[in-house]
Amino acid sequence: MATLCRPTVSVPEHVITMEETLDLARSVHADHPQLALALRLMENTGVKKRHLLRPIEETLKHPGFEQRNAVYEAEAKARVPAVVRQALTDAELRPQDIDLIIYVSCTGFMMPSLTAWMINRMDFRGDTRQMPIAQLGCAAGGAAINRAHDFCTAYPEANALIVACEFCSLCYQPTDLDVGNLLSNGLFGDGLAAAVVRGRGGTGVDLERNGSYLVPDTEEWIAYDVRSTGFHFKLDKRVPGTMEPLAPALQELAGQHGWDASDLDFYIIHAGGPRILDDLSKFLGVAPEAFRFSRATLTEYGNIASAVVLDALRRLFDEGGAHQTARGLLAGFGPGITAEMSLGRWRVASGRGAAPTRIADLVPGLAFAEEPHRAG
Amino acid sequence: MATLCRPTVSVPEHVITMEETLDLARSVHADHPQLALALRLMENTGVKKRHLLRPIEETLKHPGFEQRNAVYEAEAKARVPAVVRQALTDAELRPQDIDLIIYVSCTGFMMPSLTAWMINRMDFRGDTRQMPIAQLGCAAGGAAINRAHDFCTAYPEANALIVACEFCSLCYQPTDLDVGNLLSNGLFGDGLAAAVVRGRGGTGVDLERNGSYLVPDTEEWIAYDVRSTGFHFKLDKRVPGTMEPLAPALQELAGQHGWDASDLDFYIIHAGGPRILDDLSKFLGVAPEAFRFSRATLTEYGNIASAVVLDALRRLFDEGGAHQTARGLLAGFGPGITAEMSLGRWRVASGRGAAPTRIADLVPGLAFAEEPHRAG
Repeated sequence: MATLCRPTVSVPEHVITMEETLDLARSVHADHPQLALALRLMENTGVKKRHLLRPIEETLKHPGFEQRNAVYEAEAKARVPAVVRQALTDAELRPQDIDLIIYVSCTGFMMPSLTAWMINRMDFRGDTRQMPIAQLGCAAGGAAINRAHDFCTAYPEANALIVACEFCSLCYQPTDLDVGNLLSNGLFGDGLAAAVVRGRGGTGVDLERNGSYLVPDTEEWIAYDVRSTGFHFKLDKRVPGTMEPLAPALQELAGQHGWDASDLDFYIIHAGGPRILDDLSKFLGVAPEAFRFSRATLTEYGNIASAVVLDALRRLFDEGGAHQTARGLLAGFGPGITAEMSLGRWRVASGRGAAPTRIADLVPGLAFAEEPHRAG
Repeated sequence: MATLCRPTVSVPEHVITMEETLDLARSVHADHPQLALALRLMENTGVKKRHLLRPIEETLKHPGFEQRNAVYEAEAKARVPAVVRQALTDAELRPQDIDLIIYVSCTGFMMPSLTAWMINRMDFRGDTRQMPIAQLGCAAGGAAINRAHDFCTAYPEANALIVACEFCSLCYQPTDLDVGNLLSNGLFGDGLAAAVVRGRGGTGVDLERNGSYLVPDTEEWIAYDVRSTGFHFKLDKRVPGTMEPLAPALQELAGQHGWDASDLDFYIIHAGGPRILDDLSKFLGVAPEAFRFSRATLTEYGNIASAVVLDALRRLFDEGGAHQTARGLLAGFGPGITAEMSLGRWRVASGRGAAPTRIADLVPGLAFAEEPHRAG
């Protein structure tokens, strides 16, 4: 058994609203021939606000790849420990109980990865396994859950810590003027999340089966151009249409498990954009309300890449969780185009009775994601 | 059971000898105040020749990070398929039999990783899991073996494919003039390798236990500075001394398994440099001859990063393998400073009798690593 426990999510303190984003696009790109289209696409995302590491004036400047990567490292070191500590507390574990750290992030690059620093500074054991993943983009949140599940399947007494750290604003490229880039500038936000997968015990999603699926011949649809100015995000206009080929993969995985993907109790889906959620709801034949957690992440934080699925799951916990043995589907989507999917049942640790209606009311730290995180 | 089968290794066609390297250093760095020290350190590596993607004149030019990364991508696409096909043939599997691809490489960056391209172009199943790892450096060869082992432990019928693709010459930085950099310029080589870990069947190393160890507070000893010019390799002069704290970690892992790390039948060790091998032989109390596979890799190819352990293991296969149930240790070392270690026994697939004295004599393709690879 591998139980995905309550995620902790943190977003930075600088906020930009959609109105401000649109005003900014109007002023910065006044002469852009497709400005009207870009504005419409941004508005259609449904994003109301996003959180950024830096004030917008600073975010818009590009000080060079080296400087940006230095900011990435400093901010990750400042912000990761708090979410990790809270996730451990919520899973009722200590750093020494963790056997594997899966660190996923596609918005900065460090070697060694932050895992080495965490082990040195946060009291993890020296023999903790490190699995840093930088190349799965938004799908890495789902991949992290799935690789943690695999690890706890191999070692049933083990515990894995997942950290997703995404500072998308550090990949803003002022010279990329394609409509897809303008849209991205209004869609992505910064955020980080951590969660523990416990081999034994814990309250959350008991992971039962996972799978991956690559949509054939789409490897260039979501990609980075790697340049001296850093990572340049390429987004093909066909991406929002990928739920049509992906929905059958979700159905197939559920079918292998004797479940029907259209008839589950909860859904934790990567909110890449509004059409992803609208289409998946249509192709799976589930009510849009079923994706309310993902939609709330998109509205309040924008697309925070690999951290989306963890934030959407956090919102399910905030709602009081699901009933014991409720069946659910989790799915991350990203470059490849890859889907990382898992199926599990809601589980309340024995000795706890039913999940409290509002877990957040009972434990002060659990309102964490509601408040901007102060680095320190 | 998870059996690490015969690796296939390929090195590019351009060769530079140690004499040529030293001559080059004397001419390029004629005014360097520590030239004599750098030359001595290079000579002491024991490297006789290395293989490079491009002729040396071209290798010494830095055309920019974007151009280098484009070369990385083109060369990986040109060279990976042949090693993968051979590794699959040697493991007696087809692409459709593979459930997980672990692609490790720290010398170029792509998102999506090459795994997506491989699945699309090489007839792997669309539901193959992808595990790209870019941030474990030379330790990633050991990490790949260990994560494949974990995966086959979780899913005993599964098979995992490991690919290590390292074009170290694409990280040559002409402006880095520190003695550690000069040494690195004479130590690292280009090479790529693939191997299959079979959940059932296969001839090779039956993986029984794995572990990881981070040497405390050494995270800055081997690291990349990420700049507009790409990855800049930083090598602290204390690195060669790390076998003293690492040997006990190897001993401890072996002890947990009821084995003595000083008394095993074969050793497949990352050949980071000559002192790594000398010291480990001293601290473990094993004869230097036990590390002959690693030493041969270092001598003939230089340090080919995460591909070293796979090449050293290939040399054990070339020697005819070990006796049935012979006990061995595999270890990769890299940034962190991290050791990725595993213990296993030599196993000959049933129905095959003893391992042939020279497997390479029986199957024409197995001499592959002896011949420079022609891309195509």
